[in-house]
Amino acid sequence: MTEQKKEKARIGVLTISDRASSGEYEDLSGPAIESYLNDVLTSPFETSIRVIPDELDLIEKTLRQLCDEENCDLVVTTGGTGPAPRDVTPEATEAVCEKVLPGFGELMRQVSLEKVPTAILSRQLAGTRGSTLIVNLPGKPKAIHECLDAVFPAIPYCLDLINAAYITTNDSRVKAFRPGSK
Amino acid sequence: MTEQKKEKARIGVLTISDRASSGEYEDLSGPAIESYLNDVLTSPFETSIRVIPDELDLIEKTLRQLCDEENCDLVVTTGGTGPAPRDVTPEATEAVCEKVLPGFGELMRQVSLEKVPTAILSRQLAGTRGSTLIVNLPGKPKAIHECLDAVFPAIPYCLDLINAAYITTNDSRVKAFRPGSK
Amino acid sequence: MTEQKKEKARIGVLTISDRASSGEYEDLSGPAIESYLNDVLTSPFETSIRVIPDELDLIEKTLRQLCDEENCDLVVTTGGTGPAPRDVTPEATEAVCEKVLPGFGELMRQVSLEKVPTAILSRQLAGTRGSTLIVNLPGKPKAIHECLDAVFPAIPYCLDLINAAYITTNDSRVKAFRPGSK
Repeated sequence: MTEQKKEKARIGVLTISDRASSGEYEDLSGPAIESYLNDVLTSPFETSIRVIPDELDLIEKTLRQLCDEENCDLVVTTGGTGPAPRDVTPEATEAVCEKVLPGFGELMRQVSLEKVPTAILSRQLAGTRGSTLIVNLPGKPKAIHECLDAVFPAIPYCLDLINAAYITTNDSRVKAFRPGSK
Repeated sequence: MTEQKKEKARIGVLTISDRASSGEYEDLSGPAIESYLNDVLTSPFETSIRVIPDELDLIEKTLRQLCDEENCDLVVTTGGTGPAPRDVTPEATEAVCEKVLPGFGELMRQVSLEKVPTAILSRQLAGTRGSTLIVNLPGKPKAIHECLDAVFPAIPYCLDLINAAYITTNDSRVKAFRPGSK
Repeated sequence: MTEQKKEKARIGVLTISDRASSGEYEDLSGPAIESYLNDVLTSPFETSIRVIPDELDLIEKTLRQLCDEENCDLVVTTGGTGPAPRDVTPEATEAVCEKVLPGFGELMRQVSLEKVPTAILSRQLAGTRGSTLIVNLPGKPKAIHECLDAVFPAIPYCLDLINAAYITTNDSRVKAFRPGSK
């Protein structure tokens, strides 16, 4: 493990939605993610907030910027994970990731499936690009919350493994797990 | 959403089996799917029935015809999803699909796993090609039934999202779910 | 099914770990797999044991040797399945496999998830190369045991389907399942 860590984690929050980016409606999903992070994280962090349309090239470019130029430790996207023609977030994420972590999508679909049978339509995935973990979330604020609750316990250790920032959580909200020895 | 819909949905039922296509034994799987559709769907539909051998090129060609020429809204395949050398249905399906929907395979394996531990050997998947949803099912009539029960509640909304036909189901058999707002 | 079977199955046990291969620490994972096989298998088998570092090319080459030259029926790997930069076992496995069997990884992550939330970080997969089944296991002996218990009931039938050796298990330890008819 690298001992020298950044003092503040940087977290990208990327809303991908034609309608939110055009101002046709207010983006509620990005703020839901920010609010979740404020509730859960006890270590210092700052965010990079973006709202962009469902354009494959633009999503890829924005993800690369957040990873490579802004050195985000974690990038959380919302929107664009369904089967509709304009839904291309997973394609963009897979294109920029070096490693795909299929367990994230599997678990998020599983918890969403307890609420709605259409959870199987979500193609959300997660993966790593260098020292950044990218996680796709669904578009709806309520589903965002459920999915983050499911996967967040594994995120701090994942960031350790990819030499990203060391983050800590409020145990009463999310009990982060770090195996005793690796 | 497109408002102008076809009056009748078209559903392809594709049995993929060397032995059924050569007449070595009777195809029970295709008729099991047809019977399921007749039981469950309350909106009008017509079917395109095919029985072909486990040949990669032929499966791909048949899937393309059902999608692009016959304009099927849904294509359900049966057979060829295992690890045996002749099992190539998932490869053909992935080759013709623009989007793979991993949640279908995950859920179908999960429900089959409650019955038989060999469910993990099935590589069945689902995906979209234009305005067609393609779903691979296992080869055995009983497993077909279980898998369709698991995923069918999400199929009508999936067809909405890809601008395919609007279909409705008999709620006492399959409770289709359409989120209130998108 | 091929009637002519080998008298003894051959099973490759491949530990992938920079530290175990350099002697920095003792390999406990390979021996844990061997011990499991001795407990569970009632049919004759012999093993090919290897310990190698986390080098993509070397892992691929070793897997190819175990499959193509040593004619292993089953190859079980341990280590290198996480998100860390040096973890490349799934990449190597996917590169040499003709068919990936996603159900193995899904089920192993699911059973590990009952123990630790970081199970979703594991990218372990399984697949076939000719008449060899390759299964990635996690690196920790305890997790190895849980994962093998979960997937082993399906392995004998999988070997049948790919024309590998016929193996039998001690039912009190692992109840292998072979469908009555295929």
